[in-house]
Amino acid sequence: MVKVGIVGGTGYTGVELLRLLAAHPEVELVMITSRSEAGLPVADMFPNLRGHVDLAFSVPDPAALATCDVVFFATPNGVAMQSVPALLEAGVKVIDLAADFRLKDTEEWAQWYGQPHACPQLLDEAVYGLSEVNRAAISEARLIANPGCYPTAVQLGLLPLLEKGLVDTGRLIADCKSGVSGAGRKAAVSALLCETSENFKAYGVAGHRHWPEIRQGLNAAVEGNVGLTFVPHLTPMLRGIHATLYATLLNSDDATDADLQALYEQRYASEPFVDVLPMGSHPETRSVKGANTCRIAIHRPQGADTVVILSVIDNLVKGAAGQAVQNMNILCGLPETAGLSGIALVP
Amino acid sequence: MVKVGIVGGTGYTGVELLRLLAAHPEVELVMITSRSEAGLPVADMFPNLRGHVDLAFSVPDPAALATCDVVFFATPNGVAMQSVPALLEAGVKVIDLAADFRLKDTEEWAQWYGQPHACPQLLDEAVYGLSEVNRAAISEARLIANPGCYPTAVQLGLLPLLEKGLVDTGRLIADCKSGVSGAGRKAAVSALLCETSENFKAYGVAGHRHWPEIRQGLNAAVEGNVGLTFVPHLTPMLRGIHATLYATLLNSDDATDADLQALYEQRYASEPFVDVLPMGSHPETRSVKGANTCRIAIHRPQGADTVVILSVIDNLVKGAAGQAVQNMNILCGLPETAGLSGIALVP
Amino acid sequence: MVKVGIVGGTGYTGVELLRLLAAHPEVELVMITSRSEAGLPVADMFPNLRGHVDLAFSVPDPAALATCDVVFFATPNGVAMQSVPALLEAGVKVIDLAADFRLKDTEEWAQWYGQPHACPQLLDEAVYGLSEVNRAAISEARLIANPGCYPTAVQLGLLPLLEKGLVDTGRLIADCKSGVSGAGRKAAVSALLCETSENFKAYGVAGHRHWPEIRQGLNAAVEGNVGLTFVPHLTPMLRGIHATLYATLLNSDDATDADLQALYEQRYASEPFVDVLPMGSHPETRSVKGANTCRIAIHRPQGADTVVILSVIDNLVKGAAGQAVQNMNILCGLPETAGLSGIALVP
Amino acid sequence: MVKVGIVGGTGYTGVELLRLLAAHPEVELVMITSRSEAGLPVADMFPNLRGHVDLAFSVPDPAALATCDVVFFATPNGVAMQSVPALLEAGVKVIDLAADFRLKDTEEWAQWYGQPHACPQLLDEAVYGLSEVNRAAISEARLIANPGCYPTAVQLGLLPLLEKGLVDTGRLIADCKSGVSGAGRKAAVSALLCETSENFKAYGVAGHRHWPEIRQGLNAAVEGNVGLTFVPHLTPMLRGIHATLYATLLNSDDATDADLQALYEQRYASEPFVDVLPMGSHPETRSVKGANTCRIAIHRPQGADTVVILSVIDNLVKGAAGQAVQNMNILCGLPETAGLSGIALVP
Repeated sequence: MVKVGIVGGTGYTGVELLRLLAAHPEVELVMITSRSEAGLPVADMFPNLRGHVDLAFSVPDPAALATCDVVFFATPNGVAMQSVPALLEAGVKVIDLAADFRLKDTEEWAQWYGQPHACPQLLDEAVYGLSEVNRAAISEARLIANPGCYPTAVQLGLLPLLEKGLVDTGRLIADCKSGVSGAGRKAAVSALLCETSENFKAYGVAGHRHWPEIRQGLNAAVEGNVGLTFVPHLTPMLRGIHATLYATLLNSDDATDADLQALYEQRYASEPFVDVLPMGSHPETRSVKGANTCRIAIHRPQGADTVVILSVIDNLVKGAAGQAVQNMNILCGLPETAGLSGIALVP
Repeated sequence: MVKVGIVGGTGYTGVELLRLLAAHPEVELVMITSRSEAGLPVADMFPNLRGHVDLAFSVPDPAALATCDVVFFATPNGVAMQSVPALLEAGVKVIDLAADFRLKDTEEWAQWYGQPHACPQLLDEAVYGLSEVNRAAISEARLIANPGCYPTAVQLGLLPLLEKGLVDTGRLIADCKSGVSGAGRKAAVSALLCETSENFKAYGVAGHRHWPEIRQGLNAAVEGNVGLTFVPHLTPMLRGIHATLYATLLNSDDATDADLQALYEQRYASEPFVDVLPMGSHPETRSVKGANTCRIAIHRPQGADTVVILSVIDNLVKGAAGQAVQNMNILCGLPETAGLSGIALVP
Repeated sequence: MVKVGIVGGTGYTGVELLRLLAAHPEVELVMITSRSEAGLPVADMFPNLRGHVDLAFSVPDPAALATCDVVFFATPNGVAMQSVPALLEAGVKVIDLAADFRLKDTEEWAQWYGQPHACPQLLDEAVYGLSEVNRAAISEARLIANPGCYPTAVQLGLLPLLEKGLVDTGRLIADCKSGVSGAGRKAAVSALLCETSENFKAYGVAGHRHWPEIRQGLNAAVEGNVGLTFVPHLTPMLRGIHATLYATLLNSDDATDADLQALYEQRYASEPFVDVLPMGSHPETRSVKGANTCRIAIHRPQGADTVVILSVIDNLVKGAAGQAVQNMNILCGLPETAGLSGIALVP
Repeated sequence: MVKVGIVGGTGYTGVELLRLLAAHPEVELVMITSRSEAGLPVADMFPNLRGHVDLAFSVPDPAALATCDVVFFATPNGVAMQSVPALLEAGVKVIDLAADFRLKDTEEWAQWYGQPHACPQLLDEAVYGLSEVNRAAISEARLIANPGCYPTAVQLGLLPLLEKGLVDTGRLIADCKSGVSGAGRKAAVSALLCETSENFKAYGVAGHRHWPEIRQGLNAAVEGNVGLTFVPHLTPMLRGIHATLYATLLNSDDATDADLQALYEQRYASEPFVDVLPMGSHPETRSVKGANTCRIAIHRPQGADTVVILSVIDNLVKGAAGQAVQNMNILCGLPETAGLSGIALVP
C-alpha cells in the first residue's frame, strides 16, 4: 500500500482527490492537512465522504508528512514551493496540483503568478505530469507538476496535429468553456450561483495563467514558438471543460490529404484515458463527468482547411485530481488505471 | 458470476443500472434489450459507457432471457407483467424496477395504473424490495418489486416512528421534492430544460401513484391505516429526492420523552445504506448523488410536538437502480454492498 | 415626480429596486448610496442597467437623503434603525426592506437578530407593509417595514383560512422553498454555485428569523397564538419562493363544507397582485419571475380534512423590491400598480 | 393603434412576442392562432400572461388575419411561405420570425431547409430585418425576414471590421454558445433538462442552417465571399447567445493601427439597441436577459493580429421576438424603441 498525505484538502480538488483515493485499492490515506480546519472531521465538511473517510484535518506537520510515500499538494499557488524541497530531501515523492512547478521559465512564472519563485532550482527537475507526453519521465520523477485543467484539454486536442507538422503553428485558437468549479471553493461574489447561473461570459481574454502553460507544451511539440489565442469562458455548470480548437492546415499535400481521424486514433491507441470518437462526433462534457477521460472529436467543416477539434474533460478529474492519481500510479509502479475506472455519471 | 439481462435499457434507470452493473465485480452483463433501438451499441446512446459496456441493444427474446440468472425490467409500467410469468417458470429471478408488482391489491393497482393487472396471481408472491424491511423475504424471493423513489425516501424516514407507535398515524405529511430525472427520458414538453429549469412547482397534489404505495408500506408498519398527505414537487436539478416529513408526537410520556435520535440510530445501526446524521443536521441531496445511500436527520423544532424528519436519496440509485442491485445482491447471496460502494460526486 | 433615494444598493434587492424604479413613470431616482463602492457608476456593477441608470454610488449623506421624498433602505439588518429617526424628523418617508421594523416586540427582535434594537420607540409606529392586510395604514404611514419574502408567501397563502376561522390554528405547517438569491449577494461559500447547484436541502429547521415574523402576522389574523412549523429549503435556482402550506379543517360543518376556492377568490378579488388560480392548479414560480404577483392555488387531496395551499412569489419582487415599490405607490398616493405591470419572463 | 395578429404562438418565440406586444403602448393584439390549441386561453398555456393577455388561440383564418395591420409568423420553417402571398395581397404587412425569407438564393434555401421554396418570387422583395444594416429598406417593406439568433449576434459583432476592410475575410471564425430555448418548445429528448443541464457540447459543426445566412450578410458587407467557420454550442441555461468572434487583422498600417474601439463606437453611436462596452470588457449574457440589446466588446490579446470580438444577445429578444417588434416599429413609423425599453433581469 502506498502511504499518501494531502496538504490542503478543503477545496474542490481536495474533495475529489479524497473521493478517488478513498476508493483506490493500493492507497492508504494517512493524513490530510488544513491549518484553518484542523480538528474537523473531513466528512463533516464533505458529507459525501461519511463512511468512506474517517480522517480529521490536521495541522500541516513536516515530520509527519515526511513519513508518507507520496504527498499531494492541493493548495493555492505559491504554497507548495515553500515545503517541497524538505519533503524531497526526506525521500517523499510530491505531486503538486497547483501551478508552482508547471512553468520552466522562472521569470515567466514570476510574471504570471505575481511573486518570485521560492525554489527555482527545482523547476528543471519537476516533470510536467501529462502522461500522454511524459510517461517515462513521470515514472522516474520525484516531483510532478500536475497540469492545469485548460492545458490538459487543449494540449491533448492539439498535440497530434502539431507533432506531425500539419498545421500553421502561428495561428492556433483555443476557445475554451469551463464549469464553475474551476473557480475553486473560496468565498467570492463572482462564483455565487446568482452571478454564474443562467449566464455565460468570457473572462481573462487579455491574458490567463494557463496561456503560457499551454504554449510551453505546444512549443515543445513543435520545437519552436506557436502563436496561440486562448479565450476561456465560464459556463453555468459544476464540472467540465469543453475546448473548441481551431487550426489551419498547411497548404501542402501532406496536410490537406492527411487522414486526421486515423492520425488521432493512432496517436492515442494505447492511452487508457484518451478516447477518440468517430469522425464527426460531438463529445459532451457530461460523458466524462467524474471520469478520468478525455474525449476528442475531429471535424473539418465543409472540407475547408480549417480543422476543428473538440476536446472534453472533467476539470476536477482528468484536469486535476484524477490526473494526479494517474501520475501517482505511474511513479509508484502501479497499474496506470488503478482506482480510476469509475464511469461518468449520466445524467 | 451472475448472468444478468436487462429488459428496456434506454431510460435513465437503464443507463444507471448499466453504470452500476458494468462495474460490479460479480456480474456478467449478457444482454440488454430495446425493441426500438435493437442493433445500436449501448455506448452510442450513452457515451459515458464507451470502453465499459460493449453490448448492443437486442430485440427482447424470451429464450435468450431465460438463460440469465437474473433479469431486471427497466420498462414502463405494465410491460414487465406480460413477460414475468414465463421467466419465473424458466427459473430466472426477476427484479422489476417499474410498478407492476408493488401494490398487493389488484383493484387498487388497476385504478392507479389505468389498466387491469395481467398476472394478479403473482402479486402475493412478489416481495417488495425495501431491504431495510424485507431482507429475509428478499433473500428467498423469485420476484422482486423494486420500490419507487418517493416511497423509498418516505418509508425510510417515517418507519422508525411508526414502528414504535410514537406518532399520530392519522395525520402524516410527506412534502417531497424530486429532481427532473424522475420524469424519465421520454420526449415530453413538460420535462424540457426550458420548462423545468429556474422553476419550482408541485404536481399531482390531487393524487399520485406513489401515494398508495407509500400507504401500503406504512399501513404494514402500524398494522392499520395511516392518514397521509403526499405532495410531490419538481425541483430544477438532475437527481435527488428530499423528503420533508411531518408527524405529531402522541400526547403520552413514551412519545414526548422519546430519544428520537437514538431510536433512529438503533433502527438503522446495521443498515449499510442508511446513514442517520447527527441531531439537527440538514442532509443535502448532493451528499448522495450517485450513491446508494439514504441520509436522514431528525428535528423537533422549538421542542414542540411536531417532529420533522429530513430524508434524502438519489432517485436513480437508492430510489431505483442501486436498490435493484442491492436486491440482486441479497437474493443471489452476494455481499449486500457488492458493486455499491461508490462515493457521491461532490460538487 | 417622487424624489427617491436608496441606501445600500449593491445587493440583489438593490439592483431589483433600481430595475423597477428606473422604469417607474412617477419616480425620479436622485441618489443611491454605498460606502464601499462610492464613486462607482451603478451600471459598472450591474451592466443590465447600462443606458437606464446613470447614477454612481455615493457616500451616504444624511443631509442629501433628507432632500428625498422617499428613502428605501436595502441594507443589512440593523443598519436602517440607526438612520431612520433623523430622516423621519426631516419629513422623509422611509421604506425599510430589511427586518429592523418588522417585529413589534423589542425583546423578540433582539433575540432573533442578536443585538438590541436602536430605536424601539418607532416599532409601534412602523406599519408592516403587507398591503393586502394594511393598505389603509400604509397610505398614512411615515415608516414602512417591508415584509420578508417567506412571510409574504406564507401569510397571503394562509390568511383567508385563518380570518374565517376554518382551520386548527395550533397545527399549521409551512414547507417553503426558496431560490438562492434569498441568500443575498455577499461572498459566502454556502451560496457558491458549486455548493447550491444540483442540490436541495432544508436549513434553519431549528429556528429561522422569518418564523416570528410570520407568527406575528398570523396571530393578528386570529387574535391569538398560532402553532406554526416552518421549514425553509434552498432550491437550485435564482429567484422564486414556493410555499406549500398545510392546515387541518376544523371538525365543524362550517369548515368541512366551506367553498375554499370561492373564499380565496373573494378575499383577493380586488387585489391587483394576488392571483387565485383555478381549483386544483399547480402554480409555478417561473410564472411570477420578475413580476410583483403572488399566485395561489387551493387543494384538498382526496377530500380529506387537510387543506394544501400552494403560494408562489418572486422573492426579489413581491417578496422584496416590488412590494416596496407597491408600498411607495400607496403612501405617495400613486396608482398602486404604477411601475409594477411587468410580465414574468418565461422561459 | 396597430392591429396585430400572430400565427403560431405556442413556442418560446411566441410567448416572448406576446410578453412584448401585450405591454406595447401602440399595439392592439387582435388574434393569435394555433391549429392544435384552438380554443385554449393563451394564459392557460403560459400562466405568466394571466391578467395581461385575454385572447384564446384560434384556428388560423386567412380572412381574419387579413384584417390585421401586421401579422407575425412564429411558425416552424416552411409554414409562413404558404400564406404570405395572400396576406401581402390583402395589404397586410408580414414579419416572419422563421427562416422562410432569409436567404436570397432559392437553391441554397432548398438545400438547407430540405424542401423547395413555395414562393421564390418574394425572396427578392423580402427585406432582411437587421435594422442596423437595413433600416431604410425595412421602413418601406411589406415583408420582413426576421434574422436568426446566431446571425444577429455574429453579424453585429463582425460588421464594423468587415465594412472597413480591416481583416482577412477568408478566415473568420464564429464560436457561438446558445441557451437551450434556441431549440424551441417541442417534445424532443435532446432538449430535456436531463440531457442538457450540467452539460456542454458543440453541435452541427459539419453544417448549420445559420451558416449560409451569416455568410450572406457578411458577403454583402464585403461585396465578395467570406470564409467562415461557424461552430454552435449548447450551454446549460434558458436564454442567451454569446458569440466569440475571431478575425485576423490585415498586414497593413490601416489595419494594425486602427482604433477598433472607436470604430465600433462610431458604427453603433446612433443605434438604440447596440451597446459597445469599454475596451477589454467581458459582456455577460445575463446583462441582456429579457432585453432587446446586443452588447459588444473588442479585444486584441497581447496586441497580436488576432482580434477577438465578444457579442451577446438574448436569443428570444434581439435574436427573435424583440427584433421582430423593432422591425414592426420601423415599418409602422413608430418610435423604434416603443415597447422595447425593458431592463434585463439580473439575477
